[in-house]
Amino acid sequence: MKINGKTYRTIWFENNIVKIIDQTKLPHQFVIKNLKTVKDSINAIKTMEVRGAPLIGATAAYGLVLSILEKNDLSFLKRSSEELIQARPTAINLKWAVDRMMKKLSGINSNENLKIALDEAKTIVEEDVTFCKNIGLNGLEIIEEISNKKKDTVNILTHCNAGWLATIDWGTATSPIYHAYQKGIKVHVWVDETRPRNQGANLTSYELNEEGIPNTVITDNAGGILMQRGQVDMCIVGTDRTLSNGDVCNKIGTYLKALSAKDNNVPFYVALPSSTIDWKIKDHNQIPIEERNSEELSHVEGIDENNEMKKVRIYPQKSKSLNLAFDVTPAKLVSGLITEKGICEASEKGLKDLFK
Amino acid sequence: MKINGKTYRTIWFENNIVKIIDQTKLPHQFVIKNLKTVKDSINAIKTMEVRGAPLIGATAAYGLVLSILEKNDLSFLKRSSEELIQARPTAINLKWAVDRMMKKLSGINSNENLKIALDEAKTIVEEDVTFCKNIGLNGLEIIEEISNKKKDTVNILTHCNAGWLATIDWGTATSPIYHAYQKGIKVHVWVDETRPRNQGANLTSYELNEEGIPNTVITDNAGGILMQRGQVDMCIVGTDRTLSNGDVCNKIGTYLKALSAKDNNVPFYVALPSSTIDWKIKDHNQIPIEERNSEELSHVEGIDENNEMKKVRIYPQKSKSLNLAFDVTPAKLVSGLITEKGICEASEKGLKDLFK
Repeated sequence: MKINGKTYRTIWFENNIVKIIDQTKLPHQFVIKNLKTVKDSINAIKTMEVRGAPLIGATAAYGLVLSILEKNDLSFLKRSSEELIQARPTAINLKWAVDRMMKKLSGINSNENLKIALDEAKTIVEEDVTFCKNIGLNGLEIIEEISNKKKDTVNILTHCNAGWLATIDWGTATSPIYHAYQKGIKVHVWVDETRPRNQGANLTSYELNEEGIPNTVITDNAGGILMQRGQVDMCIVGTDRTLSNGDVCNKIGTYLKALSAKDNNVPFYVALPSSTIDWKIKDHNQIPIEERNSEELSHVEGIDENNEMKKVRIYPQKSKSLNLAFDVTPAKLVSGLITEKGICEASEKGLKDLFK
Repeated sequence: MKINGKTYRTIWFENNIVKIIDQTKLPHQFVIKNLKTVKDSINAIKTMEVRGAPLIGATAAYGLVLSILEKNDLSFLKRSSEELIQARPTAINLKWAVDRMMKKLSGINSNENLKIALDEAKTIVEEDVTFCKNIGLNGLEIIEEISNKKKDTVNILTHCNAGWLATIDWGTATSPIYHAYQKGIKVHVWVDETRPRNQGANLTSYELNEEGIPNTVITDNAGGILMQRGQVDMCIVGTDRTLSNGDVCNKIGTYLKALSAKDNNVPFYVALPSSTIDWKIKDHNQIPIEERNSEELSHVEGIDENNEMKKVRIYPQKSKSLNLAFDVTPAKLVSGLITEKGICEASEKGLKDLFK
């Protein structure tokens, strides 16, 4: 998708270097960063220079390519793969991508390794692009239907950034929106700010702006009254891990929006590539919920009056804080799962019918 | 209650000047501000140097005292009263306090006016203190019951600041907590940050810290998963306007917490002095919901590394935002109303049995 009118992806490989857009600098600065070692990749995932389940997976895949470039050695590669998986605990794609790479690389120490790794990483990336595109085409039908009925702008609420910046291209939750917009359907997006890291305001609003899609930033608190007032026609969010029973683990606060959507008869959809499905965990209490540094709450970064990046502390120094990154939206609150293969019910049957 | 170990109220009258704690400076600076004219009072309400329904009412009452001190003239007083009521649209106490003052001041142009106005303002203030104290004693019973059953720390979630800083003393939502703490019951408070103005993090956490009550700041997004995990024993919030049917208008985001409390069987209480009851409006759609400046979302103030107050812009300049200040929690989600006269069901019958 476009930034300043030029088409980009979030990650690409060039001259043995992995290039990423440093998302911690957005929206204030557009910086392309070079990852030269597997440590760089791990660090980029940990510090959220790259984020979003699909993009984390792709970064991990390329991380293993960098690992081979550093040292074509099985034990080093295995250590790299373990460290990559540890970089963030909640998104399932991370492990999925690493496992997939390692399976291909099981016949290690050959001269073919680099090529095999690079091919597989590229396949993961291209697959994600195709999946996201298909998610968009499938979700487009829902938007189109609302638009035909309403004969007015379709108001879509989204939480966090499940945009193209969270994937390689198109995004998951945003892909139906981009496809609708490109088809000439009038859409407007309510963008949840998404505290504490403000990925909605900083990334989703930014990427929608760059594509020319009308959007309005709201606090995470605001979705409820907008739904009460009939100002939201549908919600679409992404997910970091979808359980086989249809429960959805996503950015903290998603659950509250889903409750409100249910209470106000607003359809609530979750968009996901099948790589985010966790077929093993049956009980959402078993999902490891990441607890992040409390400084993400107490400090906020922005642009000061001199147009310089500045970090300020917004709370009393004495105050403790707790920073959980995800919550779980039970399947009962989800109107449907928009996947690359089609839309299904958020249930074991729905998912199995599509994927097994 | 205490700040730096010294006992304060949020507003007091001294040498023909109204003194307030400038709450826009908290928690970073403790500044006492002088209001010398009715314009000063209106401005203090508009810019939220004073906020919270009961304190807004008290500030308006004292504003009329200042008006008489400026010019003991009926038409000036009437204009003052109208401008005060216009200062903020949602809190019902504002109109309530002004109407109550004006009723007493109907026999205008006499030398008695100043004394009458001052007496009535002081009565409003003292009544609020007594009401808040009684709210605390009534709410204490609920906390005590949970504590007796649980035999462990009672975790209470609150949204925004319905603390003593929102009233004259004790607070509404916090009063049961202060009373429980003073009685030796172990309590811990989950403090919703409360975007966009962060009154939870900036005021509630601050005032609880100053009284030594354990508390943890969380994002507005976090209450859901904490309730899912059983880490919230009860919620108590305040209100800016309670309808006679038990619907509660309060700081935006309250509704989402109430939905989550319902979904997880967590009791959800609203604490209020009867002055916030609106006996007239029957349908919550008729409540004027204040829309505030969008800069409250896009800009955040805090302390920089040199300990200086600094305002930064956190969103892309291009991004539009919408800043609604309140939402409505339907009575069906409210476990009970904690008032100065006792606890009642959130319903017409419940309220009438207590107050009519």
